[in-house]
Amino acid sequence: MNGKLIVFEGVEGCGKTTQMQLCSQWLASLGVSVVLTREPGGTELGKDLRRLLLEKSEDKPVNEITELLLYAADRAQHTAQELKPNLAQGKYILCDRYTDSTIAYQGYGRGLNMSLIQQLNDIATGGLQSDLTIWLDVDVEVGLARKRGQSKLDRIEQEAIDFHYRVQQGYTELAINYPDRIVRFDGSLSQELVHINIQEILISRIIERR
Amino acid sequence: MNGKLIVFEGVEGCGKTTQMQLCSQWLASLGVSVVLTREPGGTELGKDLRRLLLEKSEDKPVNEITELLLYAADRAQHTAQELKPNLAQGKYILCDRYTDSTIAYQGYGRGLNMSLIQQLNDIATGGLQSDLTIWLDVDVEVGLARKRGQSKLDRIEQEAIDFHYRVQQGYTELAINYPDRIVRFDGSLSQELVHINIQEILISRIIERR
Repeated sequence: MNGKLIVFEGVEGCGKTTQMQLCSQWLASLGVSVVLTREPGGTELGKDLRRLLLEKSEDKPVNEITELLLYAADRAQHTAQELKPNLAQGKYILCDRYTDSTIAYQGYGRGLNMSLIQQLNDIATGGLQSDLTIWLDVDVEVGLARKRGQSKLDRIEQEAIDFHYRVQQGYTELAINYPDRIVRFDGSLSQELVHINIQEILISRIIERR
Repeated sequence: MNGKLIVFEGVEGCGKTTQMQLCSQWLASLGVSVVLTREPGGTELGKDLRRLLLEKSEDKPVNEITELLLYAADRAQHTAQELKPNLAQGKYILCDRYTDSTIAYQGYGRGLNMSLIQQLNDIATGGLQSDLTIWLDVDVEVGLARKRGQSKLDRIEQEAIDFHYRVQQGYTELAINYPDRIVRFDGSLSQELVHINIQEILISRIIERR
């Protein structure tokens, strides 16, 4: 019995956290064994890396290539320590961000070399891909406004608005290029509707295949 | 005016710290502007990474690929923030460990894929190589005995003795393969003699070229 890796993606404030919670409760109600996790920060080591990556600190600048390598290090640890063992036990993993985030944020957002990013994604994951990536598509301004209402913005959230629009463009192109793996959901709908739409796709694409 | 990158390499307890100090004092006495630095940990961010890499912690295991990526992240930050700016200012940088350490420790020591290590060294450094690498060759057991006398052994120093012999073999092969860049010094000689031998090589290979 093999588990499933279901990844939630999107710009800041797209509703990943809420939808992951709803999805987790629903899957559990079906008797599915669910693991909730995230990148960066899905392991003990990763929590330290998440802090280095997301806390803005004047005396600790983070070079763009350093950032890319730290995300890869977090991913390598997470894949080896959490994703692969849980998949081997047949669990459904709901993961907040994975390889597509690096393509969208560091590739489209920062303009770093795509083949370098692909190389590092491969090194970190050993080729492990999501069974399904749920892209929650919301307007960039709407998402950031939600985040501002919730908490202090982190280093990535503080990037200029153009950066977030490039990230959004990245998700759009990824969804076009990998339709079998990435599904777009209209994140501007109500939480309940988005959740029902996600249920439908999981039933047709993931759960039926068990 | 271009600076020079002079790297000190060798197994644990080979005498790098002592020789770097002597070399730094001597160069300064010649009116050379010297910077002492090290990997991992040559930047503020790098200090945090050094702690993650070298402190043994049961609740924060470090996967081998993660380790490799963290060394690369430390190197990327160090190269961009310290090495390149100081070289551009014409300084002589004395650096405790650089790319050859990763080849010796992660490549020969852990047996990780060499082309992967080379890829990551290139990504992290953008191709910057040392002008001279000073390899202090001491017997593995002698070096470790020195370290045991000085302080608590870190995560790498605690590796089995076989690991350290493979690292030593790595340095031996590197010195054979890159004779123009890497020079072996007999680290079993007295501190004063080793220092004089290093002076001679620096005068013939580095300082005369100014």
